[in-house]
Amino acid sequence: MERPKVLIIMGSDSDIPVMQETVKVLKEFGISFEMRVSSAHRSPRKTSFLVSSAPERGIQVIIAAAGVAAHLAGVVAAETILPVIAVPMPGGALNGVDALYSMVQMPGGIPVATMAIGKAGAKNAGLFAIQILALNDSSLTALLKVHREQMAQEVEGKDLALQQSLAAE
Amino acid sequence: MERPKVLIIMGSDSDIPVMQETVKVLKEFGISFEMRVSSAHRSPRKTSFLVSSAPERGIQVIIAAAGVAAHLAGVVAAETILPVIAVPMPGGALNGVDALYSMVQMPGGIPVATMAIGKAGAKNAGLFAIQILALNDSSLTALLKVHREQMAQEVEGKDLALQQSLAAE
Amino acid sequence: MERPKVLIIMGSDSDIPVMQETVKVLKEFGISFEMRVSSAHRSPRKTSFLVSSAPERGIQVIIAAAGVAAHLAGVVAAETILPVIAVPMPGGALNGVDALYSMVQMPGGIPVATMAIGKAGAKNAGLFAIQILALNDSSLTALLKVHREQMAQEVEGKDLALQQSLAAE
Amino acid sequence: MERPKVLIIMGSDSDIPVMQETVKVLKEFGISFEMRVSSAHRSPRKTSFLVSSAPERGIQVIIAAAGVAAHLAGVVAAETILPVIAVPMPGGALNGVDALYSMVQMPGGIPVATMAIGKAGAKNAGLFAIQILALNDSSLTALLKVHREQMAQEVEGKDLALQQSLAAE
Amino acid sequence: MERPKVLIIMGSDSDIPVMQETVKVLKEFGISFEMRVSSAHRSPRKTSFLVSSAPERGIQVIIAAAGVAAHLAGVVAAETILPVIAVPMPGGALNGVDALYSMVQMPGGIPVATMAIGKAGAKNAGLFAIQILALNDSSLTALLKVHREQMAQEVEGKDLALQQSLAAE
Amino acid sequence: MERPKVLIIMGSDSDIPVMQETVKVLKEFGISFEMRVSSAHRSPRKTSFLVSSAPERGIQVIIAAAGVAAHLAGVVAAETILPVIAVPMPGGALNGVDALYSMVQMPGGIPVATMAIGKAGAKNAGLFAIQILALNDSSLTALLKVHREQMAQEVEGKDLALQQSLAAE
Amino acid sequence: MERPKVLIIMGSDSDIPVMQETVKVLKEFGISFEMRVSSAHRSPRKTSFLVSSAPERGIQVIIAAAGVAAHLAGVVAAETILPVIAVPMPGGALNGVDALYSMVQMPGGIPVATMAIGKAGAKNAGLFAIQILALNDSSLTALLKVHREQMAQEVEGKDLALQQSLAAE
Amino acid sequence: MERPKVLIIMGSDSDIPVMQETVKVLKEFGISFEMRVSSAHRSPRKTSFLVSSAPERGIQVIIAAAGVAAHLAGVVAAETILPVIAVPMPGGALNGVDALYSMVQMPGGIPVATMAIGKAGAKNAGLFAIQILALNDSSLTALLKVHREQMAQEVEGKDLALQQSLAAE
Repeated sequence: MERPKVLIIMGSDSDIPVMQETVKVLKEFGISFEMRVSSAHRSPRKTSFLVSSAPERGIQVIIAAAGVAAHLAGVVAAETILPVIAVPMPGGALNGVDALYSMVQMPGGIPVATMAIGKAGAKNAGLFAIQILALNDSSLTALLKVHREQMAQEVEGKDLALQQSLAAE
Repeated sequence: MERPKVLIIMGSDSDIPVMQETVKVLKEFGISFEMRVSSAHRSPRKTSFLVSSAPERGIQVIIAAAGVAAHLAGVVAAETILPVIAVPMPGGALNGVDALYSMVQMPGGIPVATMAIGKAGAKNAGLFAIQILALNDSSLTALLKVHREQMAQEVEGKDLALQQSLAAE
Repeated sequence: MERPKVLIIMGSDSDIPVMQETVKVLKEFGISFEMRVSSAHRSPRKTSFLVSSAPERGIQVIIAAAGVAAHLAGVVAAETILPVIAVPMPGGALNGVDALYSMVQMPGGIPVATMAIGKAGAKNAGLFAIQILALNDSSLTALLKVHREQMAQEVEGKDLALQQSLAAE
Repeated sequence: MERPKVLIIMGSDSDIPVMQETVKVLKEFGISFEMRVSSAHRSPRKTSFLVSSAPERGIQVIIAAAGVAAHLAGVVAAETILPVIAVPMPGGALNGVDALYSMVQMPGGIPVATMAIGKAGAKNAGLFAIQILALNDSSLTALLKVHREQMAQEVEGKDLALQQSLAAE
Repeated sequence: MERPKVLIIMGSDSDIPVMQETVKVLKEFGISFEMRVSSAHRSPRKTSFLVSSAPERGIQVIIAAAGVAAHLAGVVAAETILPVIAVPMPGGALNGVDALYSMVQMPGGIPVATMAIGKAGAKNAGLFAIQILALNDSSLTALLKVHREQMAQEVEGKDLALQQSLAAE
Repeated sequence: MERPKVLIIMGSDSDIPVMQETVKVLKEFGISFEMRVSSAHRSPRKTSFLVSSAPERGIQVIIAAAGVAAHLAGVVAAETILPVIAVPMPGGALNGVDALYSMVQMPGGIPVATMAIGKAGAKNAGLFAIQILALNDSSLTALLKVHREQMAQEVEGKDLALQQSLAAE
Repeated sequence: MERPKVLIIMGSDSDIPVMQETVKVLKEFGISFEMRVSSAHRSPRKTSFLVSSAPERGIQVIIAAAGVAAHLAGVVAAETILPVIAVPMPGGALNGVDALYSMVQMPGGIPVATMAIGKAGAKNAGLFAIQILALNDSSLTALLKVHREQMAQEVEGKDLALQQSLAAE
Repeated sequence: MERPKVLIIMGSDSDIPVMQETVKVLKEFGISFEMRVSSAHRSPRKTSFLVSSAPERGIQVIIAAAGVAAHLAGVVAAETILPVIAVPMPGGALNGVDALYSMVQMPGGIPVATMAIGKAGAKNAGLFAIQILALNDSSLTALLKVHREQMAQEVEGKDLALQQSLAAE
């Protein structure tokens, strides 16, 4: 079995449905990954261990998902020099604005690469990880180009369907 | 020399001028304290050590000050069961709303007691620490009552000055 | 019957479902408490009486819950030198941001310790009250440590469940 | 000397410069007034007394000015059935949005009539008090109509000045 | 039939359900009123006529309800020197924050007295109108005092119910 | 002298410095214009007259600038079927967010075309008016194409300057 | 078949239900239009082609609808000197505030005329396009005047229905 | 001369002072870079060319800086499969919240990795680019570890200075 290249770490198992968007993308591109539940606050030791030992397991990119105060990505980034991608979870009274600000407003020195709140961000976290890995893997580069082409064709298809429905009126 | 009862921990030395409000209050009530600079992200080991060893040094309350992503209070609270009071720093493009959300929106399980953004919050953090300590120290209770009385008299004095200035018109 | 140590005061009986999170925590730790409905605006005399007489009844910590303009915690804090913990209620057109700002932005002199909006905040208000009481009660300290350990194990359990579900795919 | 008809109550003497806009308007319309500094939190007894005794002094309208958590208007309104007008103060990290939300989002039962943040609100608080008093004083009605006419002429004058400066180019 | 003392003007008939809270209060206090649909933008002539002719019909207070851009209260206030009370409607993508800002942030010279967003604001608009009318009608003053007393008793009743349910556990 | 094609209407003469950006653009393209101060609230009759009579004076596009509650653009749009472009003014405690929401969140039926807050919006209001006029004036179309080209060259020039300064290091 | 005068371009086919409000208005006024799905990010070439070739197809006004980051209107405006009207889509964690800011805050040089978030904005985008076309088509001017009259009558009808329902009570 | 590995692209030359923080970091780590001014809206062709030709010039990571509507990063990301890092510029009436939302809220399919608003974000963009490059360059990994160590020591130094100043009081 292939060693994982991406670690998806979530502050709560309630984040799993959103982060399935990341999983879908990674599987589509054939990227092996680890997916773990570990909280910055409730299980800080486990979080610290999962992150600091990540390079030994072959991890090259870490994706952290958390909601509300959302310290997980910053806490992870403080433990590693691997690139850390953050996905703010929607929900709670502020619906993710709190998580977004907590993740994106990192002080100078410890970068966290923040994606959009929710499923679009989870999907893009996966794609961004692949774009990083592709710098060193020309087969991924080729797949990414195909993927871009497919997205353009999908838009084309939707436009065609609209034209047909307009013509049919 | 008396052992410190309160630990003031700041994410950056740029927070010192704001946190002088806390210092003033603690000194006024004769509370011994430690004041440390330690970052959640740039010096996580030091932060962890300062907090986990706090009870041994006699610390009973921790006050954490940080700005922007402001993970410090949560990271501190994850390391201790001592009461943790948070003071969001103003400044940055969002002027402290980011720090406020990062501090106050803690998930269930790890409480952080958040004060107002900036100097008013720093002052109140000191007073709140004293209110906690007063539960077990009747001399502090007496001092707090005097302090309340003084505040009321100060308002009275300002009102009197206003009445005199209005009468003088 | 034991005297209450914590007073939970709510601006409206519509806050009861959220504040059950506080009750659950207090019961879990065996802390006796009072729970009262009293409004800052509609029943100011009753509020004033409940708070000013609290120390005589043995109350050591007050938890105030309110929504929208949410003056209750500040009004309570103005009447007592006991530690006052605030829980902003979600709901209304601004979904609790108004309550949060009304509670957390207290002016210097009268501290209010604000928790997260809604159920997470209600739970943490209970835990924070216990952390304060534990300063003077080593059995509570022991229970809090166990509780932290349980939370870490709960996260561990959720992570294990995830690993099993991933392995089963 | 005439008995005051309007009570201006401010949470802090730092609010005086903004509230001079109210004073200017009341003087312009010949309305006698009281102006007091009294805090909802630091001098609650004094605030309560000033408000509950207001009708005996002939007060018909109360204008409350406060910043940040800004509970003053609500606390005042809870003590009286006189109309209470609120002026949120700018300043603090949130620049008055906190004061606005604290004042305007009053729960059903205790109305507070909120004006704009800062000097425009202070001026309008004075005018609104006069509009209330004018319901029972036809000379005020006449003065308000003249004032409206003057404002229209002032705009006319500014437009004329602009036309002249454009023509002179 | 009695002449109306209060004009309720709404920008859209979709505001009627919210403004029934105003109607309920006015009926409870026996205040006769007019209730009209007229838009600041879609029927400006009608709005202007309804407002400018209001004094002739005996109107003493105007309550304006509108959502989103919510110019109605300002447009009404520009046409009259009667006191204008504004109720921001919830709904739309910004859920009433837009309406609140449009109503409360009036420039100096033309006051609008803004209440809370939605039903609480609608109820308070009615009560505030009555508080204004009570300045000149001692029977209303008496009714308002009874109403305040009833609210305090209602809170008392809810607290009693809670005590019984707690005792029954 | 040429008849004006664009009416710039401002709620206050304090808006003139910002709206000079519009003037500069209109002059650059040789578009004749009227520039007037008239308030939605303080001079509603004048505003109504200026707008309803605009077509007779040859006006084809109206640009409305206002701050805070910023009802002017909506009030203007209610009086005309000419295209109305809105420029929210910065300033005030909310720095133009209130003006933006008041202008852009118009209800269905009365469109207002909103530009950015402040000088960029003022400049673009002028350009957008010209883009509208260009639909019927091919010389303006040509000028707009030149203007776009010049902007691209200006960016090119700035990039070149940067390359030279980098090379010189 | 008539050549289209308006191009409606949408970033996603999920925007179609909202943009049906634009279609309804354009059909009501007999304006021929194109409606296309093309993304600023996923199909940039197609977007560029649809816009740059628009004048050749007779397009005079472009309406761009997009959600979240909502770059479409700006990207379209960069490709054309035709007037571009933007409609921010509601939805996503920020419910269209992100789309609004992305569309309205265009830098100086490339104007985008932004409408309200959602269906009201979609309807007004259609009306605004017609107001632009009416500058050169007197039959549209007449229709717009009738439409305004109809809106006023519709408000009148709703007011009448309310009066009848109030009278029937 | 070494081929550049990082392309810094800015929407305006006014972004240069903020982006000097990126330059400082890249120089400190010995990373060669290109720095260009090119606007998404004013010079779309140039932007497209700079980005699509970037791989040929050896570019591996692109950092895009822009303010207000801030479409640049999204437009760049649509043209390339290289990792794109975004830095929202402060300034304008919304002080960078608009730029943040425009950059971070990218729809699924085209990822943009967003950093904090302003100088902290600019510094972290450089560090994040280096963390990506370090995946394939063990000397960079070593340098990053040293850099982390230095940051911890810098915090230590600041804490020591504070201890000395406290001891000296």
